Amino acid sequence: MRDEFRAELHTVSQLLVDMAEAVRAAMRQATKALLTADRPAAEAVLAGDAEVDNLYRQVEERVCDLLARQAPVASDLRAVITALHVAADIERMGDLADHVAKTALRRHPLPAVPAELRTVFTQMATVADRMSEKIGAVLSKPDADLAAELDRDDDAMDDLHRELFGVLLSDDWPYGAETAIDGALLGRFYERYADHAVNTGEHVVYLITGETLNS
Amino acid sequence: MRDEFRAELHTVSQLLVDMAEAVRAAMRQATKALLTADRPAAEAVLAGDAEVDNLYRQVEERVCDLLARQAPVASDLRAVITALHVAADIERMGDLADHVAKTALRRHPLPAVPAELRTVFTQMATVADRMSEKIGAVLSKPDADLAAELDRDDDAMDDLHRELFGVLLSDDWPYGAETAIDGALLGRFYERYADHAVNTGEHVVYLITGETLNS
Repeated sequence: MRDEFRAELHTVSQLLVDMAEAVRAAMRQATKALLTADRPAAEAVLAGDAEVDNLYRQVEERVCDLLARQAPVASDLRAVITALHVAADIERMGDLADHVAKTALRRHPLPAVPAELRTVFTQMATVADRMSEKIGAVLSKPDADLAAELDRDDDAMDDLHRELFGVLLSDDWPYGAETAIDGALLGRFYERYADHAVNTGEHVVYLITGETLNS
Repeated sequence: MRDEFRAELHTVSQLLVDMAEAVRAAMRQATKALLTADRPAAEAVLAGDAEVDNLYRQVEERVCDLLARQAPVASDLRAVITALHVAADIERMGDLADHVAKTALRRHPLPAVPAELRTVFTQMATVADRMSEKIGAVLSKPDADLAAELDRDDDAMDDLHRELFGVLLSDDWPYGAETAIDGALLGRFYERYADHAVNTGEHVVYLITGETLNS
């Protein structure tokens, strides 16, 4: 029974790793679409979201199955519930990559991001990519130190978010309200993507701490 | 055992109703803060979010307790997992009310919303209020017809959201980028609040449909 539980939980974890890899690839491609006005890349992100949703449904089904057949308690139950939270966070990261791709599409063939904002969005995307890589890693192999790094990455994202608003709100902002609004919403998408990565890290840390305390 | 399960699930439902009422009150107060530059109202929203978070934790604890002690299966298990999803959606609605209040505070003592946008935000807040009232009602007494109304309310919210952008992006928009950005982000907060209300309605419909099919 115990081995069976472990094996089933491992399958769920593997699905979460697949989800993390999918939303990492989605945000990379969405950023490419955004910065190079690449329509096929944007469309690929939108088409790929079904895969993330499908993985999310698989996590939910396997978790329900696991709860029904194994009736876990204590730290085992916590691990299962945590998997649900993590899946919800990663699914939302996929939606946010979608929003970036949709913004690129809406402005196509024009670039959605003017020259003045390319550097800051490139940096935000780099931080987002690093964070989604780390959540894939901590889900494969729980590591509290690596998970804690996500907080520092999030600080870097917040700094970039402030920098972005500094440009958008500077007196010599040369574009109109529409470009400013797109910039602000895009900034929010990257920042929320990072928030969900931090949540995932916190769930993993909670699991590790819990397992240490209870086992 | 069965009666005990029902009683415990009812307690969880009651906590969800409390959460729905709390986030309804929070958005009402946040809108008041926004439209009248009312600092105490904004601060009350921020202080009140701890209550929503506390209710959310109580739902999670009771759900874990219920899963561990009752080991529900089939539609009972689905009802319990659905409660977790609903709690997450409502908790997020509270965060969005917070974001509205924070926007009001950031601009205080100036109003964050110029005269041109007061009507559309008043209407968005009215729709948001109606939706949070309905999720309180369907959580108290599951009602698929009432839950389905949330979709139509959401259509009204989307129309208002488009109307808002029409004003923000009109050629004669008399304010700068900052006011446009605040307007766009505020619009997104109300729209996301409505999305989470719709999710809640869908979860309740799923539960009702499932119970009909399985019982």
